[in-house]
Amino acid sequence: MSASRVFSRTLVSMAVATAAAFSGAAHAQFDQMYAPVAPPKSIDLGKVELGKKLYFDPRLSKSGFISCNSCHNLSMGGTDNIKTSIGDKWQQGPINSPTVLNSSLNLAQFWDGRAPDLKAQAGGPIANPGEMAFSHTLAIDMLASIPAYVREFKLVFGKDKPDIDQVTEAIAEFEKTLVTPNSKFDQYLLGHKEALNKDELAGYKLFNESGCVACHNGPNLGGNSFQKMGVVEAYKGNKEGVEGRSAVSGKAIDRFNFKVPTLRNVELTYPYFHDGASDTLAQAVDVMGRLQLGKTFTKQENAQVVAFLKTLTGEQPIFRLPILPPSSDSTPRPTPFK
Amino acid sequence: MSASRVFSRTLVSMAVATAAAFSGAAHAQFDQMYAPVAPPKSIDLGKVELGKKLYFDPRLSKSGFISCNSCHNLSMGGTDNIKTSIGDKWQQGPINSPTVLNSSLNLAQFWDGRAPDLKAQAGGPIANPGEMAFSHTLAIDMLASIPAYVREFKLVFGKDKPDIDQVTEAIAEFEKTLVTPNSKFDQYLLGHKEALNKDELAGYKLFNESGCVACHNGPNLGGNSFQKMGVVEAYKGNKEGVEGRSAVSGKAIDRFNFKVPTLRNVELTYPYFHDGASDTLAQAVDVMGRLQLGKTFTKQENAQVVAFLKTLTGEQPIFRLPILPPSSDSTPRPTPFK
Repeated sequence: MSASRVFSRTLVSMAVATAAAFSGAAHAQFDQMYAPVAPPKSIDLGKVELGKKLYFDPRLSKSGFISCNSCHNLSMGGTDNIKTSIGDKWQQGPINSPTVLNSSLNLAQFWDGRAPDLKAQAGGPIANPGEMAFSHTLAIDMLASIPAYVREFKLVFGKDKPDIDQVTEAIAEFEKTLVTPNSKFDQYLLGHKEALNKDELAGYKLFNESGCVACHNGPNLGGNSFQKMGVVEAYKGNKEGVEGRSAVSGKAIDRFNFKVPTLRNVELTYPYFHDGASDTLAQAVDVMGRLQLGKTFTKQENAQVVAFLKTLTGEQPIFRLPILPPSSDSTPRPTPFK
Repeated sequence: MSASRVFSRTLVSMAVATAAAFSGAAHAQFDQMYAPVAPPKSIDLGKVELGKKLYFDPRLSKSGFISCNSCHNLSMGGTDNIKTSIGDKWQQGPINSPTVLNSSLNLAQFWDGRAPDLKAQAGGPIANPGEMAFSHTLAIDMLASIPAYVREFKLVFGKDKPDIDQVTEAIAEFEKTLVTPNSKFDQYLLGHKEALNKDELAGYKLFNESGCVACHNGPNLGGNSFQKMGVVEAYKGNKEGVEGRSAVSGKAIDRFNFKVPTLRNVELTYPYFHDGASDTLAQAVDVMGRLQLGKTFTKQENAQVVAFLKTLTGEQPIFRLPILPPSSDSTPRPTPFK
């Protein structure tokens, strides 16, 4: 059992114990189970600017049409707002695109956590035949053919030639900047208790005392443990081939365990769950309550929890759309229809 | 014959006469056939900000995946840099996406000029089954379901409900701002004669004296007339179904006549021609010289013309990536796989 899972289990016990001990304004007890999103530290700005270009560059795909931003769209909460994503030649992806926002705060990347960090994640979609359908070699050939890219890689990494390690490191560094501070909930956590209105506070109380906090805790309200989808009641959407953590661990016990998604900006990251089956927050809260906690929220309770969840919308990253360096005469051309 | 075509024909005569009269530093005579890209005037900033959001909003497509920016990518010279574009369900488009940059300076929109202006153009791709595959009614239903959009439309247009007329007007207003001033050539035109180096000036001279100027003149170095693709020699890429201006005029004489593309930022808008058949500027200059002018440029001349063409790269529009308002519970969801 990983440290974060122990932490998570401990929090469950704490939550239950706390809920029993305090009935009214017990918020302060729970507050310590979360943390505000903090501005990122030790950021290499050269890598960020280069990584931002790469993040928006569809030439990292076979078709020349799909970039990181296609499925992790920074105009749309770092997601594509589609149940499962569209890949090369319009292939239907097997799973919902998780948001890139605050993803640096997750214990691992992808729903099954197969990438330990953002750098490891960034190389995946480029070479995935169902996503960008390119290869790392082809990606580097493309970049190495563009003088302005070669110069920028040299400036940032001090080497004569770009390689995939530099590419993923730059993208990961850009992604580290994609945090969303200053949500109403964070203002609350930082002492501005009036930031949450009555309904939002009631929702926060329900969120804590019903046990949502057991999995959705920490600075990202999630992202720090793997949990079974369907605890009290089976999840009907579970299906072979999309089995989550067991694909990584090889353990049957991890079947249909998925990384708990962050609830940060959850208002923006619909549809919900690993299969995108839930279109609305009200529906997602209802399903989670019943399947994970054995609790059916009343209509009013549901609305209050949803009101609380909307206080988790932070300030979206604001930056200039990058201008990409043009291909040279020797740059291999995309082949979208081959 | 339209006024702009008369203008164009007149310029041919002027060009030839001028080329005969002046052999050396005749640039000044030709300079008046062009004009620098000027900052846009009478701009409605409310419409621009709303239009920018709509331009980046893939919810204007059936799939929720394709926005105006997908094929007219403002990170990439306002194009997709693909021979012919990718539409809904990965359909292959019939024609190369023209750049949106400086498109307000064109006499009409689309290669065949079937839209008289940007506003008329903007509605086309949304409802084209091969492109965004949506309908105007569905687009308005989507927008009307999003409170933040409804408020912004009301603020900007003063009406209670968005309609397609407002949508296309806002997008067109944003597009009017997408001009690229201050290219080296414009600096030259505005009096900084040293802005062009020796090779670029030699290329400019060739461009004028060989007759390129006949069609590529005015502020956009093109975009102001329809011309036959293949004048001296037939263009082998011409094919049934993509016949250009005749599809609009119904006249056989207009078959394979296309709007002359702007050469502004041509360094960024590869591949070239209405079918995207030419990958490099060197190749495009060679084909144009032979087919349109009956002139075979030497390798050095070709390089000089290309050097001149690269002085037409202006300052790309710089703006913040827009953050889109989230869908509401009642917003119809995209159907990419249906």
